[in-house]
Amino acid sequence: MKINNIPFRTIWPDELDRKTIKIIDQRHLPHKLVIEKLLTPEDFVLAIQQMHVRGAGLIGATAGFGMYSAALVAPENDFEKWITKAAKNLIATRPTASNLSWAVNRQLTAMQDESTKDNKINKSYTTACAIADEDADFCQRIGEHGLAIIKEISQQKKGAPVNILTHCNAGWLAFVDYGSATAPIYAAHREGIDIHVWVDETRPWLQGAKLTAFELQEEGVPNTLIPDNTGGHLMQHGMVDLVIVGTDRTTYTGDVANKIGTYLKALAAKDCGVPFYVALPSSTFDWQIRNGIKDIPIEQRSGDEVKYVSGITKTGKTETVLISSPDIKTANYGFDVTPSRLITGLITERGIVAARKKDILTMFPEQHK
Amino acid sequence: MKINNIPFRTIWPDELDRKTIKIIDQRHLPHKLVIEKLLTPEDFVLAIQQMHVRGAGLIGATAGFGMYSAALVAPENDFEKWITKAAKNLIATRPTASNLSWAVNRQLTAMQDESTKDNKINKSYTTACAIADEDADFCQRIGEHGLAIIKEISQQKKGAPVNILTHCNAGWLAFVDYGSATAPIYAAHREGIDIHVWVDETRPWLQGAKLTAFELQEEGVPNTLIPDNTGGHLMQHGMVDLVIVGTDRTTYTGDVANKIGTYLKALAAKDCGVPFYVALPSSTFDWQIRNGIKDIPIEQRSGDEVKYVSGITKTGKTETVLISSPDIKTANYGFDVTPSRLITGLITERGIVAARKKDILTMFPEQHK
Repeated sequence: MKINNIPFRTIWPDELDRKTIKIIDQRHLPHKLVIEKLLTPEDFVLAIQQMHVRGAGLIGATAGFGMYSAALVAPENDFEKWITKAAKNLIATRPTASNLSWAVNRQLTAMQDESTKDNKINKSYTTACAIADEDADFCQRIGEHGLAIIKEISQQKKGAPVNILTHCNAGWLAFVDYGSATAPIYAAHREGIDIHVWVDETRPWLQGAKLTAFELQEEGVPNTLIPDNTGGHLMQHGMVDLVIVGTDRTTYTGDVANKIGTYLKALAAKDCGVPFYVALPSSTFDWQIRNGIKDIPIEQRSGDEVKYVSGITKTGKTETVLISSPDIKTANYGFDVTPSRLITGLITERGIVAARKKDILTMFPEQHK
Repeated sequence: MKINNIPFRTIWPDELDRKTIKIIDQRHLPHKLVIEKLLTPEDFVLAIQQMHVRGAGLIGATAGFGMYSAALVAPENDFEKWITKAAKNLIATRPTASNLSWAVNRQLTAMQDESTKDNKINKSYTTACAIADEDADFCQRIGEHGLAIIKEISQQKKGAPVNILTHCNAGWLAFVDYGSATAPIYAAHREGIDIHVWVDETRPWLQGAKLTAFELQEEGVPNTLIPDNTGGHLMQHGMVDLVIVGTDRTTYTGDVANKIGTYLKALAAKDCGVPFYVALPSSTFDWQIRNGIKDIPIEQRSGDEVKYVSGITKTGKTETVLISSPDIKTANYGFDVTPSRLITGLITERGIVAARKKDILTMFPEQHK
């Protein structure tokens, strides 16, 4: 997708030196476009942990390239041990994200099939690129499937704007390209369907205000930024036709871990009769966990993310301000779990499926156990 | 209640010159305690509109003194017209707040009973003081009634901490003293009951982060500041025993207009089986409106409150930062309406009552129509 009308992905190997991986350091958006070079395995761990990159698909893709970076520097005589350590470090960065371990494990399996170090390195490079390409491809397909939902509402409304609410950033900046929740939105916009997006600002990290509103703006999609508290009121008053969110981990029973606050929007959607969809590439499924509320680990982050807010001053300077008393206690849970009963459907690269074990396993029969 | 261990009310006539009314300018909390003098009717309009003071009871009390201030300067030969204009200006400041028109109308009626200008001025002064004193008295009684709820939970939990979630600031800073939602909390704390309060930060204005956490801290009540997105997750995991919020307008059928986002917390409480109480002095009832969602006017405030966040920098300087792109569209609805079906009970100065027309009118028979 585009920034300043230039097409970008969120992660890509350097054009000249494929040992260097480039990312958009998203901490500076929307105020500044900063491209960062990741060179060492430690760079990748830091980039994920400190949220230079974030979002289900992009965390997976970054971990994929991170494993390649580890393979590059692993000593030949201690390759396995080195690589296992790198895998562990990467997986430890963000406990809720499902794509993370999925990508790391895919790399471990891929490298196991090769015998020489050079072959392992080559394999890990092609695998990292494949993970990124597949992510973009799957998101594009999610867009095609989700487009049908928006099209139908648009027809019901006789072309009046379709109002879509989204929480956090499950946009192209959260993936390699297109996004999950935004893919149907971009597809509808490209088809000329009249749409408007309500963007939850998404406290505390403000992914909605800083990223989703920005990327929609850059693509020319009409949008309105709202505090997270607003969605219930809008739904009560018929101002939302559809909710689409992303997910960081989805159980095979259809429970969805997504950015904290998603559960509250799902409750409001249910109460107001608004369809509530979750968009995800299948790499976000967790095929082991049955009960999302009980068993998905929820990341707790620093309380400073709640007490301090960053932005730019009138003079254009980046500044961080304290919004509360300095000595206040805070809690900062990164995600919550929306139970499957509140979800109208899951939009995957293979099509739309009910958030129910039977249907999910029918769509992904290779995961049947 | 106390700031720096000194007892305060939120509004009071100057000790020496009763023509001067003093308030705490709450825009500077928690970083600085600023006492502001209100001298002219315009000062009162500005103080309410620009939220130097806010909160159901305090808006009412400020409007009460505002009418006194108007009486002081009204010309004798045009008194009625002048006073009616002042009443109109005050009521126009905050459309959702019910106490506002209640206090203004009480003043108009009180002054009508007097014949001379001096008598009208005196009557408006004693009425303003009575409105403020009653507000404090009613809040104290709300505390006594609400205490019973907390005591019962504490006994059920065998003395383990009672976790109470609150949204926005319905604390003593929103009233003249004690607060509505916080009155039972302060009463329980004074009785030595082990309690802990989850404080919703309350975007966009951050009343929770700036005011509620601050006043609980000053009173020594254990509390944790959380993003508004967090409450659902906490309730899902049994970490909330009770929700108590305030209200800016409550219909006689039990629908509650309160700070935007309250409806989402009520939905989560219902879904998780957590009791959800609304605390209010009877001055907050609207005895005319039957359907809260349809008929309570919802204030829309400047989008700048969403895009810009104020706080203090590391060097202690007050600063405002832009969190999104500058040219983004925003919406800023101040309140939402929680339908009566989601409310466990209303805590009033007369006792606890179901959020149902029949029960409310039985408790307030003088309002029967």
